[in-house]
Amino acid sequence: MDLKNYIATIPDFPQAGILFRDITPLMADGEAFAYACNELIDFARQVGAEVVVGPESRGFIFGCPVSSELKIGFVPVRKPGKLPRETVSLKYDLEYGSNELHMHADSIKKGQKVLIIDDLLATGGTVDATIKLVEAMGGEVVGCAFLIELTGLKGREALKGYNVKSLMSYE
Amino acid sequence: MDLKNYIATIPDFPQAGILFRDITPLMADGEAFAYACNELIDFARQVGAEVVVGPESRGFIFGCPVSSELKIGFVPVRKPGKLPRETVSLKYDLEYGSNELHMHADSIKKGQKVLIIDDLLATGGTVDATIKLVEAMGGEVVGCAFLIELTGLKGREALKGYNVKSLMSYE
Repeated sequence: MDLKNYIATIPDFPQAGILFRDITPLMADGEAFAYACNELIDFARQVGAEVVVGPESRGFIFGCPVSSELKIGFVPVRKPGKLPRETVSLKYDLEYGSNELHMHADSIKKGQKVLIIDDLLATGGTVDATIKLVEAMGGEVVGCAFLIELTGLKGREALKGYNVKSLMSYE
Repeated sequence: MDLKNYIATIPDFPQAGILFRDITPLMADGEAFAYACNELIDFARQVGAEVVVGPESRGFIFGCPVSSELKIGFVPVRKPGKLPRETVSLKYDLEYGSNELHMHADSIKKGQKVLIIDDLLATGGTVDATIKLVEAMGGEVVGCAFLIELTGLKGREALKGYNVKSLMSYE
């Protein structure tokens, strides 16, 4: 299945000069959405993931079906003020603006094999911050998987040394 | 399985007087998360859902596994400024503060059987607004399913006439 047939490209969103890749047509198509999730499930099996970590909110879209199918847990990475218990956090720059990510401080066990899933690999800022939080808790990042990779933004270089998988890529 | 064993109760979050039901321990437990998702999948089959609609961001957590497993689409309900194409929207009051929800204007087909999934039924404001958006596009809401229902807030009364399912409830 060519997943690119289900991606809409929107110029100048959310601001001038950005070509936004809209994944909602893919999600709305039951066969395409399940196909994409199954590709990520296969990758999760290959790398021996014991838990899935996904950044708010589009990381939930692809990460939660993988967790549910494999009966491994899902740990959310959230913006400030959303998690009610003690957190670890990191502030970082992203493609436009800056961001601060939080995870519950007890959410990853020492030595646990972690697969990070998000919809998009751009500069890699979000996933790099997520890796740092996971590793600070003693987790082992066994893979980073994305629906879409924007190769021109060189996120894969920022993730050198990690097992990176994307289901489709754009320049 | 008693899902309540996996819910943490946090007093005074996000503000004084609120007893917050924290679902992250349930999500982190692979067996419990898959059990909850499978209960929702069974309900989706019973009501003949043709598409799942879920509000940002915790609606994605339980809605997306249902969509992926049943190979039916998932349509996100999002906050302002997130969806790149033409939207329908509605502003409403919620438990604390107010909210504005958007859906892509072409996201629901006329007569399509829609299951709305969210983590929590409180006053019902979010799901009531979502129902109005779905129905404005010609969709038929065949069910509303939640992980948790807070019965004291009478959300079920706000949804009278709809098929409402919750996996656990608190006063």
